[in-house]
Amino acid sequence: MTDTPVAEATGTSRRREATRQKLLDAAALVFAEVGLDAASVEAICERAGFTRGAFYSNFETKDELMLALTERVAGEKIDEVAERVAQLQERGEDLEPGALVRQLLDVAFDKKQGILLTSEIRTRAMRDQRLAETYIAWQTGMVERVGSFIEELALTYRFRLRLSPQEFAGLILQTWEDTSAFAVMTGLSVPEMHQLVNERTARVATALVDPL
Amino acid sequence: MTDTPVAEATGTSRRREATRQKLLDAAALVFAEVGLDAASVEAICERAGFTRGAFYSNFETKDELMLALTERVAGEKIDEVAERVAQLQERGEDLEPGALVRQLLDVAFDKKQGILLTSEIRTRAMRDQRLAETYIAWQTGMVERVGSFIEELALTYRFRLRLSPQEFAGLILQTWEDTSAFAVMTGLSVPEMHQLVNERTARVATALVDPL
Repeated sequence: MTDTPVAEATGTSRRREATRQKLLDAAALVFAEVGLDAASVEAICERAGFTRGAFYSNFETKDELMLALTERVAGEKIDEVAERVAQLQERGEDLEPGALVRQLLDVAFDKKQGILLTSEIRTRAMRDQRLAETYIAWQTGMVERVGSFIEELALTYRFRLRLSPQEFAGLILQTWEDTSAFAVMTGLSVPEMHQLVNERTARVATALVDPL
Repeated sequence: MTDTPVAEATGTSRRREATRQKLLDAAALVFAEVGLDAASVEAICERAGFTRGAFYSNFETKDELMLALTERVAGEKIDEVAERVAQLQERGEDLEPGALVRQLLDVAFDKKQGILLTSEIRTRAMRDQRLAETYIAWQTGMVERVGSFIEELALTYRFRLRLSPQEFAGLILQTWEDTSAFAVMTGLSVPEMHQLVNERTARVATALVDPL
């Protein structure tokens, strides 16, 4: 009835992953309550019900946890976009690029915390070589993933991209993020922010394609 | 032989402006030496040879001084671009959009410190309403100024913009800043950074225009 060594290892890594996710859940709550700066590793551990030892066996620093949380938030959004891309292609509707972007962004709207986190982690990565490497690997992965959706959509909906799929994706992600940051600064309400981000991103995407 | 009240007021505001500029000069040096976080108001005052009183009669906080320095650095770059635009138009050479962008960005290259400063101040503005207002007013002014160069260049060199001049300018400034930030993170040398920023910005600008 005892686990084999392989099953044990799997159990350990599953537990480890569960601990990691619980720490990220707790961090999201503590960040929302006291802000990114004031959130201490102690407070995050206490909220998660773990020791500092558990924290440091998962993350080297608070910055690393912030980046992992940013990755998780962004990954969830991109998963939603991927699902919507699949649905749209199944439905086989004919959409022009602006309408397509609006349909896709509708599911992927960012909350204020995600926007603050992204901006914060980007600035920190500029001052920390180790964090920068993880940040760039993550961004590169996102750009490739979004780039491959864009390439696929261009084939399905028959338009020509005026930039490479990767560069197109980078510009769209950048526009999305910058417009969100601007919306946070101007104190727009969530629906206003949503509308501004969608419209601006749709205009940029439309300007960067030609009909085939 | 005494100044009239008007001349006195002018003298005062000139002295005040000189103090402000000296504080910004000192801050740039201290930031370069110890980084943005570690630079204290005391260290900046000491370097400038002023009291803390002089500091606080010019800036409410260190963040406000950082934003003023960002504005000064960016303003100088845009002045250089404006001068180059005028020179190009005088020479009456025929340039395609990519070459035009490369000619213009060549003069406006940002140093690492300017890039860090811009990223830092943007993140701080997202957490501080007062700073956000100043930041947005500054960004809006830059976008309008760069937008009017772009509009003028489109007329001179006869190409059609696929976005409004302001939105075009916003996207170019954003691309320039994001690519610079990426270059800082990947630890590129100054010439490599320069080349990457110029090439990417030129590609984006080219994708956003059509021949007339």
